[in-house]
Amino acid sequence: MRCSGDIEVRDLEELAINIDPIQAGGRLTPEAMKAVIAYGDGYSVCDNCRKPFRLDQIKKPPLDAFHRELAGFVGMDEARVMPGARRGFQAVADTYVEKGAPVLLTALSHYTGFLAIEAAGGVPREIPKDRNNRITADAAAARIEEVTREFGRPPALLFIDHFDYQFGNEHEVREIAGAARAHDVPVLYNGAYTVGILPVDGKELGVDFVVGSGHKSMASPAPSGVLATTREHAVDLFRTTRARGDLTKREFGVKEVELLGCTLMGATIMGMMASFPRVKERVKHWGEELANGRIVIDALRSIGGTAILSELPRKHTLSRVDTRNSFDKIAETHKKRGYFFTGALADRGIGGVIPGATRVWKFNTYGLTRQQCEYLASAFTDIARENGIPVG
Amino acid sequence: MRCSGDIEVRDLEELAINIDPIQAGGRLTPEAMKAVIAYGDGYSVCDNCRKPFRLDQIKKPPLDAFHRELAGFVGMDEARVMPGARRGFQAVADTYVEKGAPVLLTALSHYTGFLAIEAAGGVPREIPKDRNNRITADAAAARIEEVTREFGRPPALLFIDHFDYQFGNEHEVREIAGAARAHDVPVLYNGAYTVGILPVDGKELGVDFVVGSGHKSMASPAPSGVLATTREHAVDLFRTTRARGDLTKREFGVKEVELLGCTLMGATIMGMMASFPRVKERVKHWGEELANGRIVIDALRSIGGTAILSELPRKHTLSRVDTRNSFDKIAETHKKRGYFFTGALADRGIGGVIPGATRVWKFNTYGLTRQQCEYLASAFTDIARENGIPVG
Repeated sequence: MRCSGDIEVRDLEELAINIDPIQAGGRLTPEAMKAVIAYGDGYSVCDNCRKPFRLDQIKKPPLDAFHRELAGFVGMDEARVMPGARRGFQAVADTYVEKGAPVLLTALSHYTGFLAIEAAGGVPREIPKDRNNRITADAAAARIEEVTREFGRPPALLFIDHFDYQFGNEHEVREIAGAARAHDVPVLYNGAYTVGILPVDGKELGVDFVVGSGHKSMASPAPSGVLATTREHAVDLFRTTRARGDLTKREFGVKEVELLGCTLMGATIMGMMASFPRVKERVKHWGEELANGRIVIDALRSIGGTAILSELPRKHTLSRVDTRNSFDKIAETHKKRGYFFTGALADRGIGGVIPGATRVWKFNTYGLTRQQCEYLASAFTDIARENGIPVG
Repeated sequence: MRCSGDIEVRDLEELAINIDPIQAGGRLTPEAMKAVIAYGDGYSVCDNCRKPFRLDQIKKPPLDAFHRELAGFVGMDEARVMPGARRGFQAVADTYVEKGAPVLLTALSHYTGFLAIEAAGGVPREIPKDRNNRITADAAAARIEEVTREFGRPPALLFIDHFDYQFGNEHEVREIAGAARAHDVPVLYNGAYTVGILPVDGKELGVDFVVGSGHKSMASPAPSGVLATTREHAVDLFRTTRARGDLTKREFGVKEVELLGCTLMGATIMGMMASFPRVKERVKHWGEELANGRIVIDALRSIGGTAILSELPRKHTLSRVDTRNSFDKIAETHKKRGYFFTGALADRGIGGVIPGATRVWKFNTYGLTRQQCEYLASAFTDIARENGIPVG
């Protein structure tokens, strides 16, 4: 069915159980969908923008209150909305990383962290992962010291993912933040896979910046995200412009340099705000999400030759699975090759796995009901049995 | 009426003729509204993202073809979508402006240009406006030479608005680009008030970069925009990452540094794309838009004491008007003070003027029908007559 011109209607979420690894937390709530319709037009939130003319000060719709709540939600003092988590990384890197300065991230960090550092002129250095694909405070402390010797100065910044995008493994954020603090290294908490789906308290973790993604984990349209910090760092990170017209003597008041003024002026911020009450509520139910996800993990583990590459027991709903010795063996001789597997999933109303993938792949059960997870679990075991792979 | 929680439904466009200066070109088309509903979920366009995993290469929905058409639409070789025109300014400034380098913009430039320069560490210098509030090539050439003497080097970049946001006046883009070229200064064409509402051909104008705003002038949700350039400059501006994990040896392939990878992964790009056929068509009807706008301008000019501060005849639908000697005189003694004027407009179903404004204000008739403009024109003259201001 066509939406208009050559654009087909997207119906994946309506027609399938979608286990795509990156889409689970960004599905809109019904409230967000209504807000997106009501505020779809470009500058729709600017109807009542009054002095000092800044997005986070608008009272109607109540963007000012939303910004305050957002800061509290991640346990920080000040928050701003950004066009994606990556733009939050960029703002922090631009503020704290001088040209040539070393910046730490990890062996599991997302490419957007590397790009933000590159754009700022910094030099990326990785903290190694351990044999269990986890980043430990010991490894972080050792790398801080090593980099400090190499560059004759401590790293300008340290990025740490609470849960990484590759395995969905949990890393020692609090302890790493402690090690960084001992060396005076500011810490950016990458909450792309946490803020909006599980409780996050930045101050309690001892981090300096919390970055979250609206379209990844806050049930919001893209691009959207949150950048939050402490009162102390807000002075630099959210500094207002000092630019001045040399002829006109114009000044630009309260506009924040790293935000380039206003960021999300319509559907995106309204989607975030409309979803926010449900998002605040849903983070309290993370335990149920994990329990549901484990049903699927247990089913996959029961399939002969299948290995969960993520840490066990699972502490996140995003997991990496290795089926090279199960479904991929079937693919070797199946007439549909690798497509037999994703085809069989599609026949059962399951989508979100890259067509043809049978080797190492990721999935995410976030937001699925217990019943859907049970269905998904039996779909995997049924497909295995049908193809003669031992189960149990 | 509430949309959800404390969010009221926005009904300005449904209930009123909206003459807000910045909202006119960003109202969604029906096609965009449908696309926003179908693709509201966070990473909705990523369903069929395959190698090399980049937004502008996605074939379904046809984002790849859209990107190519977008480049052609503004007369350039390569185009990317950005989270707003300001993020386009930032990408260009970050690429071409070294710390301490002078950058030219104009006495009428928007604050976002100043912020992009400030973020890149550049030093802004303004090209003066003439007595008619226009930027001329003579003034640009003189300032290029002056700045070159001051800094011992030519400006790293020159920003020029085709039409500025203050008066909606047209500036000598082609001639300014010629002067800049003679001094080897790259030119950024700010098309926030042109791309999507009137025909723009960057190469024909001789500029190096064309920046447009989706939510301001391309009937798209915020934040969205376009950044286009020549094949020559694309090599630098759209450079792919050279970052590398020092331990993992990871590389990040085709990801573009200034874009931080992908930019608009859902509702925003789908809104842009769905509106695009109508946008391509509507730029051909700019003459009708101007004719409609002049009906309103003529009515305002017929009101005693009212002055149009923008150039005449109007070449844009955004205009600045001075009613200090007409409506503001009434406000001095009216029991509702300045609110009498915007109240009288509201009584007639006209919105978009800041409540209480009676001194110097802006409005935009873009997208209104001839009949709506005639209605608007008589509303202004009726309000004048009712309050004893001579008309005619």
